[in-house]
Amino acid sequence: MMDKSVSIDSISDSLISFLKQNDYSSISILVDENTEQHCLPFITDLEDYELIRIKSGEINKTLTTCGHIWQEMTDAGLDRHSLLINLGGGVIGDMGGFCAATYKRGIDFVNIPTTLLSMVDASVGGKLGIDFGPFKNHIGLFQSPKAVLIDPVFLRTLPKRQLRSGFAEVIKHALITGVEDWAKIISFDFENEDLKSLIERAVEIKSNVVAQDWKEQGLRKTLNFGHTIGHAIESYHLDKSDVNVLHGEAVAAGMICELYLSEKIGFGCDQKKGIEIYILEIYGKISINEDDFSAIAKLATQDKKNEKGEIRGVLLKSIGDPSIDSVISKEQILQSLRHYKSLDI
Amino acid sequence: MMDKSVSIDSISDSLISFLKQNDYSSISILVDENTEQHCLPFITDLEDYELIRIKSGEINKTLTTCGHIWQEMTDAGLDRHSLLINLGGGVIGDMGGFCAATYKRGIDFVNIPTTLLSMVDASVGGKLGIDFGPFKNHIGLFQSPKAVLIDPVFLRTLPKRQLRSGFAEVIKHALITGVEDWAKIISFDFENEDLKSLIERAVEIKSNVVAQDWKEQGLRKTLNFGHTIGHAIESYHLDKSDVNVLHGEAVAAGMICELYLSEKIGFGCDQKKGIEIYILEIYGKISINEDDFSAIAKLATQDKKNEKGEIRGVLLKSIGDPSIDSVISKEQILQSLRHYKSLDI
Repeated sequence: MMDKSVSIDSISDSLISFLKQNDYSSISILVDENTEQHCLPFITDLEDYELIRIKSGEINKTLTTCGHIWQEMTDAGLDRHSLLINLGGGVIGDMGGFCAATYKRGIDFVNIPTTLLSMVDASVGGKLGIDFGPFKNHIGLFQSPKAVLIDPVFLRTLPKRQLRSGFAEVIKHALITGVEDWAKIISFDFENEDLKSLIERAVEIKSNVVAQDWKEQGLRKTLNFGHTIGHAIESYHLDKSDVNVLHGEAVAAGMICELYLSEKIGFGCDQKKGIEIYILEIYGKISINEDDFSAIAKLATQDKKNEKGEIRGVLLKSIGDPSIDSVISKEQILQSLRHYKSLDI
Repeated sequence: MMDKSVSIDSISDSLISFLKQNDYSSISILVDENTEQHCLPFITDLEDYELIRIKSGEINKTLTTCGHIWQEMTDAGLDRHSLLINLGGGVIGDMGGFCAATYKRGIDFVNIPTTLLSMVDASVGGKLGIDFGPFKNHIGLFQSPKAVLIDPVFLRTLPKRQLRSGFAEVIKHALITGVEDWAKIISFDFENEDLKSLIERAVEIKSNVVAQDWKEQGLRKTLNFGHTIGHAIESYHLDKSDVNVLHGEAVAAGMICELYLSEKIGFGCDQKKGIEIYILEIYGKISINEDDFSAIAKLATQDKKNEKGEIRGVLLKSIGDPSIDSVISKEQILQSLRHYKSLDI
């Protein structure tokens, strides 16, 4: 069952319908230079709003940018009965949501995700926040948007590489859910098939998990599969100007590493091999120097899921059978990175 | 009835008892230079903690200081099962609470209020936040501390002026509650009587209001009596180095101004006169130039309670009968400030 606040529909229809049901004193729309150019034109029939512009990219998901957004909200005179519309990918949704949820102790916000990643993952579940130095989503809170308005039309505006990045979360959802979903994924023709049903199913999986464990005490942690090492890889490359790594690409690498570690707790080697090949075919390999391994492992020690100094990750006993709070040593992370590096593509 | 998470007891006993009931992986204590010197020595029987130091004062209740606190929390390796203890007045409680509630999307925090103001007001009700430019508590959220541990022993460490400032909220609580409470206040011998019962009653009043209207949709707004104009006066003086105005002093002035405006909706002139004299006797008058009036009125237009560009305040029909969402014009604020300035002391 899908969360009632999530709709997959034509954006004009769903936005107008939402605004008719709610009486806001004023509206601001948060965009970056990409969504202003490519996505804002799809928002028709809405005239009376202020635009808040930020620069695109994870590198700008900072306290400094929040300061700018809060200032613009203040200058626009937004009161407690105002609405912020986040038009963009995960960065816009996470950061705009955080700013709205803390502006005058909280105003309503709506997410209009424009990337596959944010449609299937970031927009559902109420995790808001920003990065803090090298630490991803280190400052934030849990708060749901009033509505998530998904329209696959925005995906046409996306580069293929961005689409592929978002698809990594769809792969992850299938791996933690079960063989039926996994079978659908590997038979899905990414180039030619309609993404709508894929998005619907991914949102359904995530909504189900989140509804049962909003504050991530147990079940919800399963969604972090691939992210313990994936986030560390992503964080490590954040301030490297020579290598540019997208979230989904890092998660794809993280899944390979964490599948490798999952073998220890019973994950079948044959099945692992098949998944590795499938992921490598889509994503190729991120080039990581052996010299960087220990810095990446160190970043993993700051993961929010850790407890008492131990790294806690999600490993898979089999497809659809994730094991949360698995203790992972720094040495094991190094081993898994060596394994990743050794793979042929 | 008092909120169960609030205790008024010896701090050593209440803290040890709280920590026994909860299993935290690590503990940090947030202090400023005053509470480190005067209050930390009362925290005995607790050895294994990290100290996070900030500079005292409303002027430091900023995003920059939050950045410092988050960094220290990160450096101390606090995980999601850690505790932050806020040892101090309203600034420490509001800002420390905000930092805890947003660190790794939220960790537990406990308030140990050390001023009368924070004992009777700031520590109860879950309003967290920081100032943003001239706007008080502009960025924040609602989240309750795990416990509020009040010990009047800390009041011995306070200058008289700080005590008086906190007493303004006690006066306000009585004025919005009823004539019985008001009668107790005016007969209270501030110099010689034990403050414990006074604190208990003030916390009880506030807890009752907050329990009925956590998100300040209606009833809770009554607690803002004196604050529409009071906050504006306080904000205006924040960056004035020549005049130093404490929160309670500004609220005392705000109550006089708002009582003046309350006459219009029926507040008896005689009663008003009596309250004015009582407040002036305790607080004297803040010296405000006529030239500053319009800047103060302008600040009031950014109050969080406003809607659709109109200033909304709390006026009193009589003692114990507050009227929320009263529309107040800029001109009326100017009139009330002129009235305040005209008063003899």
